[in-house]
Amino acid sequence: MSTLGAELTTVGEGVVEIRLPFSSNLTQQNGYLHAGAITAVLDSACGYAALSVAADDKEVLSVEFKVNLLSPAVGEILKARAQVKRAGQTLTVCTADAFAVSGGKEKVVATMLATIMALPMISAK
Amino acid sequence: MSTLGAELTTVGEGVVEIRLPFSSNLTQQNGYLHAGAITAVLDSACGYAALSVAADDKEVLSVEFKVNLLSPAVGEILKARAQVKRAGQTLTVCTADAFAVSGGKEKVVATMLATIMALPMISAK
Amino acid sequence: MSTLGAELTTVGEGVVEIRLPFSSNLTQQNGYLHAGAITAVLDSACGYAALSVAADDKEVLSVEFKVNLLSPAVGEILKARAQVKRAGQTLTVCTADAFAVSGGKEKVVATMLATIMALPMISAK
Amino acid sequence: MSTLGAELTTVGEGVVEIRLPFSSNLTQQNGYLHAGAITAVLDSACGYAALSVAADDKEVLSVEFKVNLLSPAVGEILKARAQVKRAGQTLTVCTADAFAVSGGKEKVVATMLATIMALPMISAK
Repeated sequence: MSTLGAELTTVGEGVVEIRLPFSSNLTQQNGYLHAGAITAVLDSACGYAALSVAADDKEVLSVEFKVNLLSPAVGEILKARAQVKRAGQTLTVCTADAFAVSGGKEKVVATMLATIMALPMISAK
Repeated sequence: MSTLGAELTTVGEGVVEIRLPFSSNLTQQNGYLHAGAITAVLDSACGYAALSVAADDKEVLSVEFKVNLLSPAVGEILKARAQVKRAGQTLTVCTADAFAVSGGKEKVVATMLATIMALPMISAK
Repeated sequence: MSTLGAELTTVGEGVVEIRLPFSSNLTQQNGYLHAGAITAVLDSACGYAALSVAADDKEVLSVEFKVNLLSPAVGEILKARAQVKRAGQTLTVCTADAFAVSGGKEKVVATMLATIMALPMISAK
Repeated sequence: MSTLGAELTTVGEGVVEIRLPFSSNLTQQNGYLHAGAITAVLDSACGYAALSVAADDKEVLSVEFKVNLLSPAVGEILKARAQVKRAGQTLTVCTADAFAVSGGKEKVVATMLATIMALPMISAK
């Protein structure tokens, strides 16, 4: 998250939003945000959504995800909104949409369907 | 690619390898490479593999991909090897594996199944 | 569709619902509907949703899909609801949820994220 | 499996092959095998491959899968070959290819990337 410069703007029960200001080192020569950066933000949003419904002594790990790239990501800010589709003891399924915000207008640019695993937290010594 | 510091090491007909040296700004506090960075490298490898079998006047665009994260990515270098599964006029399907290289040993850390679209190249003026 | 005994119950602009009564030859020994049958219904729903937004001279073909199985599918009826996420000239992305209806109650059992291609219709002579 | 008329022809450590003779009730009006039937066979192959590497007291459950449909499935027999990509304590990742056999020639028609969960077997009384 800190590498990308993203921030978590809202967290509800199973719902999360992350914002990432576009920066030159995450965009290609045409000004489009890289698929890897979009994926990182969608994956983080899904992870935090899963974490928000997990037991307090659990941490989460992404098992797998699918991303459909829907439109070129151009604008000033990338927003990702994730929600829990189904929370299980071990596995949680989340969906997330990514939107490019340009001049105050949102346009959906990608969507993710992800499986996240809840694991007992490794206590730090 | 330049953002990440990755380089394309080999290209055959429908087969590509990309190497990315681990760097501190792409790893998490535990030293694991971010899923977004792994995805970026796998996606690039699939894109170049698709490009290697496309007509000369075409460029390629990722439509969608699925990634399974198999093991924590720790080591000095990340390698991604992609191959074309089926090349079509419009759509090409590729698979790619990502390996973490640590002390000369390779360990598979992720796998991708991707759909890539070939488009008429926009000629630059 | 006829093989499975499914029927299309509603079609709006980009929204479709399909219902499949459970039958003994589509269920396993434990009474759960097979993943293949659930996938067939979700795939059909996505296909019809994509078709509902396609040009009149186009037909549709599934390129790929991902399915997450969320709960065992037990009940009397399987319902699938699909919606178009983004319609393009060539590719349309759809999502669909499958619900098992048991005693009048719906429970989500699976979800699909799919890519569908629109092709010029082959005219039958 | 019995619904479809498929049979398991070979099982090695983490490798499985399933064969399904085409039948009229699994094909569409154009003679193509349904995506649902192809998925069912690929999913079964992945499940058996995962089972072949699981502990003796475990059973397996498909968590999710992605299928790319590569070519129309026409012929006399559908073969699916699955292999374990990574076996874990809880989750196993498998890949599988489906081939249509027509006049003795094999053609790849679909590919799957799947996540399978190993669960303690429910002992039948």
